Amino acid sequence: MPALHFWYDFASTYSYPAAMRIEEAAARQGIAVSWQPFLLGPIFEALGWNTSPFNLQPEKGRYMWRDLERICAAMDLPPMRKPNPFPQNSLKAARVALCLEDREPRKRFSQAVYHAQFAWLLPIDEDEVLAAILDCQGLRAEEILAKSAEPEVKQALRSQVAKARQLGIFGAPSFVTSDGEVFWGNDRLDDAVRWQARL
Amino acid sequence: MPALHFWYDFASTYSYPAAMRIEEAAARQGIAVSWQPFLLGPIFEALGWNTSPFNLQPEKGRYMWRDLERICAAMDLPPMRKPNPFPQNSLKAARVALCLEDREPRKRFSQAVYHAQFAWLLPIDEDEVLAAILDCQGLRAEEILAKSAEPEVKQALRSQVAKARQLGIFGAPSFVTSDGEVFWGNDRLDDAVRWQARL
Repeated sequence: MPALHFWYDFASTYSYPAAMRIEEAAARQGIAVSWQPFLLGPIFEALGWNTSPFNLQPEKGRYMWRDLERICAAMDLPPMRKPNPFPQNSLKAARVALCLEDREPRKRFSQAVYHAQFAWLLPIDEDEVLAAILDCQGLRAEEILAKSAEPEVKQALRSQVAKARQLGIFGAPSFVTSDGEVFWGNDRLDDAVRWQARL
Repeated sequence: MPALHFWYDFASTYSYPAAMRIEEAAARQGIAVSWQPFLLGPIFEALGWNTSPFNLQPEKGRYMWRDLERICAAMDLPPMRKPNPFPQNSLKAARVALCLEDREPRKRFSQAVYHAQFAWLLPIDEDEVLAAILDCQGLRAEEILAKSAEPEVKQALRSQVAKARQLGIFGAPSFVTSDGEVFWGNDRLDDAVRWQARL
């Protein structure tokens, strides 16, 4: 069965609620999800942005934090908190995710990273934090962290970014159906699932 | 009864589907809509942008036109077309809208301007086009166009932009509930209506 591809950056705030609800939304329609970590940084850099647009546009940033408070409350998630610094560096977490099998282990790791970051304010660029998350899931943290620093994994993440660009992705979360339709944003998740369900 | 405030720019693409469906969505919850035209241009200029972000970010622009094709199809609206130039200059249309009573005459004029622009590709910055739209609605076009060029109306539009900024508005469409919650984007319209309905 073709899967709905879920493109996410660990530093992306709206990817958090999407990561927490995509499996259930997709399962209701009998659809599988493929977890596709990537980095927005290089895509933003190409636009001349050196940080998140939510920092570059303070009004949009203020709106986003309030909006995510509302969204988390409606989803019964813990209150959304702002990491310091924001955005966090998501490079290591993305490399680790690529070392894990898509989809169950990668899904569980990814959801845990979002929780650690936005509910507990843990620094997700630190090996200790990533190791603790892997440990909690019964995964071999040391081995996986070592693997995540290998050249093949670094290259795999660069390929992910290149593929995202090729698909026309410019933000996260994005959802790509098996016929190539792109849907951008947590609030378009249900549209993407419906589109995939019709294929 | 407090109304849901609908902030829109005539050049804004996502404001078009919002303008076409907001009255029905609000009426289902027994809510009135107050139509608040404003200009995004000065707000974008303050960010150093000299045109629409959909032009500044070509990938985002391509996505937006495809996304609006899907949205118009789902709403049984005529196919969305791209005006040339894009964005259109929305200054005159906004001034005319401010001369019309909120909400029925302003609503009908605003919906007609969106249709003229995005379905028929008419230049909405031309007096002839605006006059034709007013005529169609049995309004005194010549009188209204003359009034729309008066200093009080120009000042009223500047005040609208200042008020939008004060509310934290940075994009269109935006919906502001009577307790000051801001919701941004056509896909957040239903959330805004639900929020207002609880007040």
